[in-house]
Amino acid sequence: MASTYTQPVQVLIDELGRLPGVGPKSAQRIAFHLLKIPADDVARLAEAITVAKAKVRFCERCFNVAEDTYCPICKDESRDNSIVCVVEESRDIVAIEKTGEFRGRYHVLLGAMSPLEGIGPEQLKIRELVSRIGPEGIDEVILCTNPNTEGEVTAMYLARLLKPIGLAVTRIASGLPVGGDLEYADELTLGRALEGRRSALDD
Amino acid sequence: MASTYTQPVQVLIDELGRLPGVGPKSAQRIAFHLLKIPADDVARLAEAITVAKAKVRFCERCFNVAEDTYCPICKDESRDNSIVCVVEESRDIVAIEKTGEFRGRYHVLLGAMSPLEGIGPEQLKIRELVSRIGPEGIDEVILCTNPNTEGEVTAMYLARLLKPIGLAVTRIASGLPVGGDLEYADELTLGRALEGRRSALDD
Repeated sequence: MASTYTQPVQVLIDELGRLPGVGPKSAQRIAFHLLKIPADDVARLAEAITVAKAKVRFCERCFNVAEDTYCPICKDESRDNSIVCVVEESRDIVAIEKTGEFRGRYHVLLGAMSPLEGIGPEQLKIRELVSRIGPEGIDEVILCTNPNTEGEVTAMYLARLLKPIGLAVTRIASGLPVGGDLEYADELTLGRALEGRRSALDD
Repeated sequence: MASTYTQPVQVLIDELGRLPGVGPKSAQRIAFHLLKIPADDVARLAEAITVAKAKVRFCERCFNVAEDTYCPICKDESRDNSIVCVVEESRDIVAIEKTGEFRGRYHVLLGAMSPLEGIGPEQLKIRELVSRIGPEGIDEVILCTNPNTEGEVTAMYLARLLKPIGLAVTRIASGLPVGGDLEYADELTLGRALEGRRSALDD
């Protein structure tokens, strides 16, 4: 009744609250924002959601987002087949592509191992990664999962799985961010930066 | 191309990024979440948005959210017509209703004055508030706008506008939150709490 929202508003708040990073307060705020703005803007949002979901699927080879069977990177004939960068999510590919440092292929795991959330190797696209190695002539796998607990566990699991096959398996470096400040670095990052030190005159 | 998202994904990220409190990173995260979860869940979200926008409008009397011409509170005959609580948004009504302390009517301004964002008295439902006073026999207006800059400016404006009409105009108290800790209170709040002190043996 009076002390709660009218039903369509409550349904909207509940649905918004299911989104990652959107708590009950944000969901309320977004819901009332949507009720206040012009109907056209709201229709555009609903449309964007529906269209993206309908049109976008996952690349059958690397599980990047794609509009066709394969994603633009898998379709690109000029890229190096022998080296594969393993990431958790499609958005990580965009970040790596922006560096312009990598010309190989990708493989998206669609998540990271997390025993607490019940995500084990079977829930990730790990079997699909292994099955690509022989047919595609992959020599090196770069483990680019996040440098947090889930990402490290996943990288460790993959390293143990892939090294015995005879592949070069590397992990992206952890250390101080460029432009960062030693004083403000947390001790774990600083520890990693020391551990990963390299000869100062290497190119 | 490869370094950006496929078009429907980018459109979705852009639309999500327009929501209040959703930055570019959150928009990305929500977009990829939507691409990963079952299509039914996504359809439910899009539907909730569309339905709420289609069904919900603003009460013609107090501008609370409503499914009909008037909101449930305005329709409730048992409430006290003589006292009106002025709030910025509908969600504030829900918060006040939860206290069970107020049995009068409400008036939603649909915002607060903010010269920086170009929101003046004309953009708020202030004229509509003034026009309710005579016909509804309102004696007291409680200014329940937020205790921040915009809310205070709005309350000040309304007090100056309404007092000369001969109404009792009150402002909700600012002070330490119940269960709060003096040590951690900011100086403005503590100053307000001192300024608003009351006789200790009042009921």
